[in-house]
Amino acid sequence: MNGTAITTREEHASCGGRVGFYSHPSATLGLEARFGVFLPERALAGKKVPVLFVLAGLTCTEETFLIKSNAVRFAARHGLALVAPDTSPRGAGVAGEDDAYDLGSGAGFYLDATREPWRAHYRMGSYISHELPELVRTCFAVDDTRRGIMGHSMGGHGALVHALRAPQAWKSVSAFAPICHPAVVPWGEKAFSAYLGSDRATWAAQDATCLLEAGHTHPTEILIDQGEADQFLREQLRPELFENAARQAGQKLALRLHAGYDHSYWFIQTFVADHIAHHAAILNGG
Amino acid sequence: MNGTAITTREEHASCGGRVGFYSHPSATLGLEARFGVFLPERALAGKKVPVLFVLAGLTCTEETFLIKSNAVRFAARHGLALVAPDTSPRGAGVAGEDDAYDLGSGAGFYLDATREPWRAHYRMGSYISHELPELVRTCFAVDDTRRGIMGHSMGGHGALVHALRAPQAWKSVSAFAPICHPAVVPWGEKAFSAYLGSDRATWAAQDATCLLEAGHTHPTEILIDQGEADQFLREQLRPELFENAARQAGQKLALRLHAGYDHSYWFIQTFVADHIAHHAAILNGG
Repeated sequence: MNGTAITTREEHASCGGRVGFYSHPSATLGLEARFGVFLPERALAGKKVPVLFVLAGLTCTEETFLIKSNAVRFAARHGLALVAPDTSPRGAGVAGEDDAYDLGSGAGFYLDATREPWRAHYRMGSYISHELPELVRTCFAVDDTRRGIMGHSMGGHGALVHALRAPQAWKSVSAFAPICHPAVVPWGEKAFSAYLGSDRATWAAQDATCLLEAGHTHPTEILIDQGEADQFLREQLRPELFENAARQAGQKLALRLHAGYDHSYWFIQTFVADHIAHHAAILNGG
Repeated sequence: MNGTAITTREEHASCGGRVGFYSHPSATLGLEARFGVFLPERALAGKKVPVLFVLAGLTCTEETFLIKSNAVRFAARHGLALVAPDTSPRGAGVAGEDDAYDLGSGAGFYLDATREPWRAHYRMGSYISHELPELVRTCFAVDDTRRGIMGHSMGGHGALVHALRAPQAWKSVSAFAPICHPAVVPWGEKAFSAYLGSDRATWAAQDATCLLEAGHTHPTEILIDQGEADQFLREQLRPELFENAARQAGQKLALRLHAGYDHSYWFIQTFVADHIAHHAAILNGG
């Protein structure tokens, strides 16, 4: 690990590689920010490896996806690095930011807020797009030209939006139970109203289904796994709307529905191997 | 799930089976107790499967090992049920029981306390030996004649002690970074002094190394994985003392030391597949 601006909080050997948790003063967020990284053995030996960003859901931190998803063992097997950002700025000092699980702390929605009082610090969009990839490229042995993105729930929304907005930067994309069309569901309406304001025209650029409708596509097949017993499926996630938009846009999509599975990490653990293999096939194949 | 005395707190499909968290009024503990169970697909179909008890370490709950160890996917593959008890009674009302991470709540040491004020409720020894296996056998499709035990740290101590004391009940045994000789290390001295009193002669029955020295052995090979970068290795764990006692007792032991690995679940994730396979080979083979 190089780079002077990064503080090592903890590091652990795992699956032949190393999981580390770091913090750094983020210029984008104007706050100290935390993130986690898994490096496979090959990267520890200095060989640059492809890198997969993993975006967690509401209430999570930079640790949650790495410790609960079972992804590390498959990233080790395929020789991928994993990068796990936090789910929001922390300690921004916005009144009420810690009061609700679905707005503020732990609920940054991976976008740049444009409205007061959020816009000074709630800039996870630029952080994910620019600052964190640059930092990771500087500090670790990763090949940033082979970079993918995946996520869960709010993080699935983030993965789809970032990949559709910048398919040249994010070469592969997948999601577990993503919020597919936040502009029309309660979680999204609450967050977008606060972060972006009441003009819904501004929301489309942060909504995966709207992006498809506006002609944004990704050159690779998008993999989405969704549990049919997910308690948020009908009200908050709406994959059928994304599927319709994908069909009309000509976007290749593998939307897999799984009877009996819910929204939890128990669901993610079940299918995570397929996601890592999906990204590895694209990122290692290029 | 049968049995009227058991309350389902949550259940989740996972890896083709089901993870559930339950509570029940424990006669042994005199308190409501919680535990987790993973049932593979075969057990959900009503076929009785072998069952592996997994004992977590200090500060953990009934959820920790199941969600962080990656064990569920391998239990599913081998057709084993997993049972994860809590690490202590909860709400016993002993003064100071929540004050230290290594005594009281989260630190039951899987034994029956004999001293005041602990002895009324801190009876995890009998709970693990009798009440919980009986409850699980009654409520779930498990074959209790094919029952194994494993654990981590304090739970590794618990697994070794229970298996050596009752090898006919626990057909297979393994541990990650167990407290091998609690009677001579700070964690054990603190807990045993409180739970068992100052007469060290009474400690031997709760100490895996002392049990070997007293002639207790297990008919199968004991598997232990230990990280050489474990921060607790030299002061608290002392596997070399257990290894010496095993050699003198003629106990088959596979003690595997792993350079660079520490005491965390990142270490467990790395080697858990071998532990589940170890138990499956014995429990499925009988």
